[in-house]
Amino acid sequence: MPETTSPALTVALAYHQAWTSHDMDKAMSYVAGDIVCDAPAGRLEGAAAYRGFMGPFVQTLKAATLIAAFGDNTTAVVVYDTETVPVKSAPAAECVTVTDGKISYSRFIFDRLPFDAARKAAAGSG
Amino acid sequence: MPETTSPALTVALAYHQAWTSHDMDKAMSYVAGDIVCDAPAGRLEGAAAYRGFMGPFVQTLKAATLIAAFGDNTTAVVVYDTETVPVKSAPAAECVTVTDGKISYSRFIFDRLPFDAARKAAAGSG
Repeated sequence: MPETTSPALTVALAYHQAWTSHDMDKAMSYVAGDIVCDAPAGRLEGAAAYRGFMGPFVQTLKAATLIAAFGDNTTAVVVYDTETVPVKSAPAAECVTVTDGKISYSRFIFDRLPFDAARKAAAGSG
Repeated sequence: MPETTSPALTVALAYHQAWTSHDMDKAMSYVAGDIVCDAPAGRLEGAAAYRGFMGPFVQTLKAATLIAAFGDNTTAVVVYDTETVPVKSAPAAECVTVTDGKISYSRFIFDRLPFDAARKAAAGSG
């Protein structure tokens, strides 16, 4: 984990470390109850919606590799690659705002296309 | 444009400023001839391939908004939203390595799904 003097990055990396270790309970301890997340499929509001988005993804997670992580007092960006059951390489970037030690806003960027293709392939073979 | 003491971010932001101003010639002046770019559709090698990827996208660009930008000596991350002719909001993250003042490696993350959907819709209506 990179050394950092950024309070926002400290939280973002702790959150990242937790979910990539499949510990969604710990990951959610860094997420504000009223988090707003702009994800590729649209806006998610509230911790329950956010966990509903991340939880199923984390269940398919086989490995994660940190690519870059930067931050300042209130904002952090974490870029990483993931290997999941349906998709071998699915890189993502999360740009988060941290308020009172918790992630209050997240801009979540990844490519949905390979997940969509995997879903269609699975449906087609089912 | 954010102030920065990061040499890599200085280059990444100059490149960003150029292409979001539709100046691909200037943008390419910050890109190494042997750039390697891991884009959602796969790896691009060399400046010509990179320009072939970015050029058509930039032609459809209506507006761009910088979301976050960070960097250190060799690495920078730039997160932004774009409005293009086919897709109203297409956020992206570029994590670049800068070598000798030029972008030598780029990990480019965005969601291809809305572009794919727009292409299919256009084909269907054509």
